[in-house]
Amino acid sequence: MTPAVSEHLEPQELDGVQLWWRAANFLSAGQIYLMDNPLLREPLRPEHIKPRLLGHWGTTPGLNFIYAHLNRVIRMRDLAMMYVIGPGHGGPGLVSAAWLEGTYSEIYPDVAQDNDGLKRLVTQFSFPGGIPSHVAPETPGSIHEGGELGYALSHAFGAVFDNPDLIVPCVIGDGEAETGPLATSWHSNKFLNPATDGAVLPILHLNGYKIASPAVLARIPDDELLGMLRGFGYEPYLVAGDEPAPMHHLFAATLDRCLDEIAAIQRRSRREGVQQRPRWPMIVLRTPKGWTGPDTVDGKYVAGTWRAHQVPISDPRGNPEHLWQLESWLRSYEPGELFESSGAPVRKIREHNPTGDRRMSASPHANGGHLLRALRLPEFRDYGIEVEQPGASSGEATRVLGRFLRDVMRLNENERNFRVFSPDENNSNRLAAILAATARTWSAETLPGDDSLARDGRVMEVLSEHTCQGWLEGYLLTGRHGFFSCYEAFAHIVDSMVNQHAKWLKVAGQLAWRQPIASLNYLLTSHVWRQDHNGFSHQDPGFIDHVVNKKAEVVRVYLPPDANTLLSVVDHCLRSRDYINVVVAGKQPSPQYLDMESAVVHCTKGIGIWDWASSDDDGDPDVVMGCAGDVPTMETLAAVDLLLREFPDLRIRVVNVVDLMRLQGEREHPHGLSDAEFDSLFTRDRPVIFNFHGYPWLIHRLTYRRSNHENLHVRGYKEEGTTTTPFDMCVLNQIDRFNLAIDVIDRVPRLGPRAAYAREALKTKLIEHRHYVSTHGEDMPEIREWSWPGR
Amino acid sequence: MTPAVSEHLEPQELDGVQLWWRAANFLSAGQIYLMDNPLLREPLRPEHIKPRLLGHWGTTPGLNFIYAHLNRVIRMRDLAMMYVIGPGHGGPGLVSAAWLEGTYSEIYPDVAQDNDGLKRLVTQFSFPGGIPSHVAPETPGSIHEGGELGYALSHAFGAVFDNPDLIVPCVIGDGEAETGPLATSWHSNKFLNPATDGAVLPILHLNGYKIASPAVLARIPDDELLGMLRGFGYEPYLVAGDEPAPMHHLFAATLDRCLDEIAAIQRRSRREGVQQRPRWPMIVLRTPKGWTGPDTVDGKYVAGTWRAHQVPISDPRGNPEHLWQLESWLRSYEPGELFESSGAPVRKIREHNPTGDRRMSASPHANGGHLLRALRLPEFRDYGIEVEQPGASSGEATRVLGRFLRDVMRLNENERNFRVFSPDENNSNRLAAILAATARTWSAETLPGDDSLARDGRVMEVLSEHTCQGWLEGYLLTGRHGFFSCYEAFAHIVDSMVNQHAKWLKVAGQLAWRQPIASLNYLLTSHVWRQDHNGFSHQDPGFIDHVVNKKAEVVRVYLPPDANTLLSVVDHCLRSRDYINVVVAGKQPSPQYLDMESAVVHCTKGIGIWDWASSDDDGDPDVVMGCAGDVPTMETLAAVDLLLREFPDLRIRVVNVVDLMRLQGEREHPHGLSDAEFDSLFTRDRPVIFNFHGYPWLIHRLTYRRSNHENLHVRGYKEEGTTTTPFDMCVLNQIDRFNLAIDVIDRVPRLGPRAAYAREALKTKLIEHRHYVSTHGEDMPEIREWSWPGR
Repeated sequence: MTPAVSEHLEPQELDGVQLWWRAANFLSAGQIYLMDNPLLREPLRPEHIKPRLLGHWGTTPGLNFIYAHLNRVIRMRDLAMMYVIGPGHGGPGLVSAAWLEGTYSEIYPDVAQDNDGLKRLVTQFSFPGGIPSHVAPETPGSIHEGGELGYALSHAFGAVFDNPDLIVPCVIGDGEAETGPLATSWHSNKFLNPATDGAVLPILHLNGYKIASPAVLARIPDDELLGMLRGFGYEPYLVAGDEPAPMHHLFAATLDRCLDEIAAIQRRSRREGVQQRPRWPMIVLRTPKGWTGPDTVDGKYVAGTWRAHQVPISDPRGNPEHLWQLESWLRSYEPGELFESSGAPVRKIREHNPTGDRRMSASPHANGGHLLRALRLPEFRDYGIEVEQPGASSGEATRVLGRFLRDVMRLNENERNFRVFSPDENNSNRLAAILAATARTWSAETLPGDDSLARDGRVMEVLSEHTCQGWLEGYLLTGRHGFFSCYEAFAHIVDSMVNQHAKWLKVAGQLAWRQPIASLNYLLTSHVWRQDHNGFSHQDPGFIDHVVNKKAEVVRVYLPPDANTLLSVVDHCLRSRDYINVVVAGKQPSPQYLDMESAVVHCTKGIGIWDWASSDDDGDPDVVMGCAGDVPTMETLAAVDLLLREFPDLRIRVVNVVDLMRLQGEREHPHGLSDAEFDSLFTRDRPVIFNFHGYPWLIHRLTYRRSNHENLHVRGYKEEGTTTTPFDMCVLNQIDRFNLAIDVIDRVPRLGPRAAYAREALKTKLIEHRHYVSTHGEDMPEIREWSWPGR
Repeated sequence: MTPAVSEHLEPQELDGVQLWWRAANFLSAGQIYLMDNPLLREPLRPEHIKPRLLGHWGTTPGLNFIYAHLNRVIRMRDLAMMYVIGPGHGGPGLVSAAWLEGTYSEIYPDVAQDNDGLKRLVTQFSFPGGIPSHVAPETPGSIHEGGELGYALSHAFGAVFDNPDLIVPCVIGDGEAETGPLATSWHSNKFLNPATDGAVLPILHLNGYKIASPAVLARIPDDELLGMLRGFGYEPYLVAGDEPAPMHHLFAATLDRCLDEIAAIQRRSRREGVQQRPRWPMIVLRTPKGWTGPDTVDGKYVAGTWRAHQVPISDPRGNPEHLWQLESWLRSYEPGELFESSGAPVRKIREHNPTGDRRMSASPHANGGHLLRALRLPEFRDYGIEVEQPGASSGEATRVLGRFLRDVMRLNENERNFRVFSPDENNSNRLAAILAATARTWSAETLPGDDSLARDGRVMEVLSEHTCQGWLEGYLLTGRHGFFSCYEAFAHIVDSMVNQHAKWLKVAGQLAWRQPIASLNYLLTSHVWRQDHNGFSHQDPGFIDHVVNKKAEVVRVYLPPDANTLLSVVDHCLRSRDYINVVVAGKQPSPQYLDMESAVVHCTKGIGIWDWASSDDDGDPDVVMGCAGDVPTMETLAAVDLLLREFPDLRIRVVNVVDLMRLQGEREHPHGLSDAEFDSLFTRDRPVIFNFHGYPWLIHRLTYRRSNHENLHVRGYKEEGTTTTPFDMCVLNQIDRFNLAIDVIDRVPRLGPRAAYAREALKTKLIEHRHYVSTHGEDMPEIREWSWPGR
């Protein structure tokens, strides 16, 4: 399997690779330890050492080794490559590489390629006011934060979709390989079209240990490991060893072979058309953890063990023997041969670098905003549905949206910069119209009964929310656009990925050199109120709560109540940059309230009084009924209907919220209303019955500073549910029309003696409902057939 | 590979399996469609059909097929088996099985094995007031909710750990197989000890389609599929077909072969000791989706396609042709041969059932509370650390806890009912003492440099939070105890799993026949305030926010401020039942405040005034300083120290919160304080500066109903961070002593003119701090060396 090798590299090639690698390793160790004397031009003294040593050595020399070799092939083959590394705690490696390539100094001029710059380079690492210890937005050439593990491969695939000339070597640590998201992302190769997408070269890096334990994939026999990888559809080449020179030849030969195979696959599929799913090459690289670092410290083995994971020699500042050992380790790279007197890398190293955009640290794909082109969007108003009278007609919001997205797909077909993602729910979420414009991406076997599968499809469906999210992030971070539709409850599966993406956006937004990218757009549908059929496990509206903990400048949450507002909101989201937009909307037939122009006005304001549903014509309401979300809005209106039939002179004001962040104060969120605006909607002293899509506490959390907060009574999901009818879901959680009407009666004292009677009648309705559904198995006709009567 | 088969089953065996399967399929389809006439004793009429058809047919006949065969081998071999099915939307199948076995009627007497019971059986399914459409706590024999996919295999392994006589056949749908958590859980076999654990028999069920798309594993060549599974360390046997009789022989032969192999592995390892990791058998079952259901409906293929996923024939109530087709489908099972005139299953079917506890639907392991034995716990007070004077000494809370857990491990060694779980962080989280009592579980290859690995270790470490959580859930649900330690930020990886477990606990708690199980205990450490070294990606305290959205009766959150309180809290958690306990505690050296008896009192109350830190001796404070969490508590005390030096007559009250839910109202949470109690701590009108471990809004959310809420000012994590010093993390988020002292000064008017001067001095301190850390790379000595001076 492994190609025969003896002297694959020419002597000067070997020299270049080895020198570059030594320099990168030297600078990496220097970053972990030093705050002065970076080139060891004087003997190492305690005051050169940082007081706190924070960093990860173990994975770094392997990452540098691969980088050095990639630089060779980039130059020789003139390749466009971007480097994605899973073991991102190997941050010092990638910073060293970017500095050696000159990119670092171009972006951060005070970290120049000279002696001063070098001092700054080593000092700033893991230092207050400096740079993080992991690969991060600050790291040139990166799209992949090196904190939480699991997403390297899906990010890499996301980056190469529709980038036919890009190759992404993706390093997967043997620790990361144990995570679920990574384990399933191997199958991304069934979704890659060799003709129109680029290539990922996975490099599984077995260095044997995690923080403390051995890694599973490093401790199974080679036949199991290679069999597994072949089962995933790859052709794995094993490169193992610890002697630098033979390893250089072996790795270079393997890399050349892999790149030859990739080139052949691409040539074949682009000239002759794709016949069958190719077997893409990959590399298994087995090297010692902490390679080239100290073998033993205090009599204990370090290199090749878990002890090399972070800082291999502790406390050189306080322990003279450790200081001496550190100095000999650093000097073993012979820095005098690596740097000129100015501090710049020697010519041989500089010549080993690719040039310009070919440097991986300068890959334009890794600063995707540079490449971003705005989507061509059709006029969303053209997709609106007729609403002659508010609430009188019915529509399926996501089905309407599907037609709009279909034409977004068509308009950008030539640009090839828009994809939609979903865990096998595109049609279940009623976005099926998109399939008229494109197919589902599929490169595995097809059978006659299949529906809309094609290699160049742009609807990406795999039953892994993690993979969908990872692909989409990779696609966005490299300057394209996307849309993720998901069952609301299962968006929690990617909670932690959303965290990391939000953190990335926050930090990237503070870096002038990082250009804005397209927003990450979620449509949460099949939501809590219409999971009456799948039951309790599918009922959870908490993703919103999770998202609003992130920085206000990054997060937007929209709850359009009907189809036209959904169109307006999604159009806005597709135009926006650098946000995480969460849109919650149902897929079931529901009342439609706003004609298109009203919808645009309402969405632009984000919140507003619905005059046509209100009865406080004098502007002095007895009660304010707030609502956010399609089902809660419908129940609020039905409650208004019930109340006004009984109490025609009751002055109700209906306030609908589309943009949830309008509820927060203007100092807390850029979309927040001023207190005066808030009071003008919700009054300063009237009872407010707020019917909310999600957990009720979220509304309190957003409004606790408002003057009328004391009178705010919120209904929402309180974790009650099962398989039942849609209306019964509302009743179980008391967001239904009957309970809301009771809430109003209880809070408007002036209703007088009629109130008790009306209250009793509503209670009776609830009992009737319970009896009816448990006998008939569906909701009462008066519920199913209700529509807003107009006023 | 596949064993030779011709007539593996004796005719009467074949007859039993086939009859049982037909009956289960018939009842499954009946549950989806019927609300009357369950045995078709009269012609099917529209009014026999439910008005809303909710259920999943596609996967069900395959699940029933396997169940029928398992019943045969359970009887023949007298096996203890429990059935875990990933495709849990096949709920009607498992309900049918439990009813055929008699278990259902024993638990739910109104669903008897007679005609009335049958009518009830079909009607209740997916019906308001009835039972859920998915496998759920209501389903006898289940430990695995069939909603969110991904956890079947880790639950199955969790169930067999320390259950040497248990075999869990675990069905993995080809949809679920695409999820990340499932994809990595195959490697659980590297953590199973054949001598002391039971066995899992994975059955990968390829029925080809998910809701809409084909499944990846169903569309790769057999050599890839089988190679992948062998790479995972299994010996896969493929069973494929759609003709019932040959399939019965083939599957029975394969099952016998697998069970022979399992028996041989277990015999060998238990008699001769384990030599090497065995290659466990597994089955790949390829059958048509919706097998035995309608082939075509309205001219479109159904059986064998995605159209069979849910309800294969729509609207038989309104469409006479569909009604006729449904009737012929149901009659194809020949119900007259399956049921006696009483409605009971015929003798041949009854005789096919195992008896008593051997019935999978009656497995005692599936109602783990029945088997639960309380842990033997050492006296936790003996592990406390000396605290002569509050705040004067230092300790590492989790290291102290490690010694306690070590002895919990020892005391229960014979019982074999306690394990600890972590994603390779046991030692990083400073619980290393446990390794003195037991090793890390490890059945893969070992090398000389490894630390504490053993086949029968009880510290379960794999770098997959999903697998840790899945194992632990399976272990708890089958009646054992466990403890999960995790980096705080990465607990979000299992957000959705926590949701599902909380939902399970809520529903199970409402079922009298389900016995309480041990709580799911989390220790979140390496928390936000001490991830100064790993940086922003590791800083997220939001898991608490996520958990408190679940039902109050299920959720507990503790923030012990030091080692002795941590011991007291964990002792309490290990004794508790049916909760999700989240304990947040740091691992770094920190001030210790309470001696053991004070700690016990404080934890018992859950919240309290710290007199020794307060200066409101007259009980009439100028300001209340609340705190929750170890680092915020330290900063609050340091602020008190600063303030009292400057303003010796300032009356400060310090309130520390251990049990977060005490802050909620007594009507909202069982632990909630009454308003009177709350006011007695926080006053009704004094400013409260609350320093919180997590996102500040959570405190507002918990307290918005309290009378003094308007004066509550909360500091907490506001999503600011990077790699920096510990104290700088506090400053970036303004939870530090200087900012807190400024907050107090700004809110206590009576401080007079001195206030402005003191405020300026504190601002200067913040500037000094910034300058010092960015020069020295560590915190100022006065910060590092601060300790509570006593009063």
